[in-house]
Amino acid sequence: MADEVVLLDFWASMFGMRVRVALAEKGIKYEGKEEDLTNKSPLLLQMNPIHKKMPVLIHNGKPICESLIIVQYIDEVWHDRAPLLPSDPYQRAQARFWADFIDKKMYNSGWKVWTTKGEEQEAGKKEFLENLKTLEAELGDKPYFGGDRFGFVDIAFVVFYSWFHAYETFGNFSVEAECPKLLAWARRCMEKESVSKSLPDQKKVYEFVAQMRKKYEAE
Amino acid sequence: MADEVVLLDFWASMFGMRVRVALAEKGIKYEGKEEDLTNKSPLLLQMNPIHKKMPVLIHNGKPICESLIIVQYIDEVWHDRAPLLPSDPYQRAQARFWADFIDKKMYNSGWKVWTTKGEEQEAGKKEFLENLKTLEAELGDKPYFGGDRFGFVDIAFVVFYSWFHAYETFGNFSVEAECPKLLAWARRCMEKESVSKSLPDQKKVYEFVAQMRKKYEAE
Repeated sequence: MADEVVLLDFWASMFGMRVRVALAEKGIKYEGKEEDLTNKSPLLLQMNPIHKKMPVLIHNGKPICESLIIVQYIDEVWHDRAPLLPSDPYQRAQARFWADFIDKKMYNSGWKVWTTKGEEQEAGKKEFLENLKTLEAELGDKPYFGGDRFGFVDIAFVVFYSWFHAYETFGNFSVEAECPKLLAWARRCMEKESVSKSLPDQKKVYEFVAQMRKKYEAE
Repeated sequence: MADEVVLLDFWASMFGMRVRVALAEKGIKYEGKEEDLTNKSPLLLQMNPIHKKMPVLIHNGKPICESLIIVQYIDEVWHDRAPLLPSDPYQRAQARFWADFIDKKMYNSGWKVWTTKGEEQEAGKKEFLENLKTLEAELGDKPYFGGDRFGFVDIAFVVFYSWFHAYETFGNFSVEAECPKLLAWARRCMEKESVSKSLPDQKKVYEFVAQMRKKYEAE
């Protein structure tokens, strides 16, 4: 029996993009179902009753939730091609550590950059840039976070690239000026079709974020 | 060469307890080094420069940080005994999902119960009890979260048992009255020496939490 793979997704979701990149890396065919943020589908609520969030991977009828957990699941199920996590337990722990850092630190500081103003925004921007620099230091002179191969941490982080233009515009900074090596890494990742075809255009994301910001301002 | 295993720990830390339980389940001898919360050791700052937090497992000189990542590392390195994560990828993903839920939801709502007052505390208490009930529903009639065997989710969650008396006293509720099946599960886990010897006494934790609460009130 062929695998039935469905992804409940939203085009501008960085978490959804992670799953898209992982599936593309593994060459897995799937049906993407676009969710409406303001009117989530009964299928989403049924498949992720706890968090009610995208992305959800539905593999042969069974749901898997939370993007980093989904990417690990994909790596474990389709383990015969394009390994995403290193095989060495210590390296795996390091990869999980940095992916967790990205989840705990990058998303929230980025959120502050585009949803707030004044001092709060300045604090968010400072934090965001510090986190970027921590990640740039961890990357060092390696081509990818895990070394020579594109992998788990790259997937966890490269999705932010699609939001860079929005962060830069609202935060009034340049990632290239602040973290040139990191931007070079992101562009290196974008040369891979699995990444470039899974990430939306930065301008389109910017327009979406600008609309969302107006909504926050109005509230 | 024998493994050199060191744990940078703090006795009342639920995250430290998780690592203690995992090491005990695997029967791994280690040296526990108690940290001073108000004056963290140079070794801790060197081994966890990013988060500067306990626990840190140092295995043959190399640090692993973040409790759930450490427990997975322990399970992968000492894979020949007392498996903690299920071997099936789907069950592994489910175990990771619930451990992640505990980290994202239980700790923060518990924090509100003992550090705040009035409406904020009531909101924290409501959230804390809702989360407990979600976990009780997930447990269902199984002896452990993963089924018949004590495992990853049990380790992630059972450490809260040592803080129950503190939560109950400051929040003015009874876990037994609210979630009798969950309390029966916690007591079942406590029958295991790996758990009972790794968790401090509830009264001692309560006294520690009471002192910490006074400090927060004074600030």
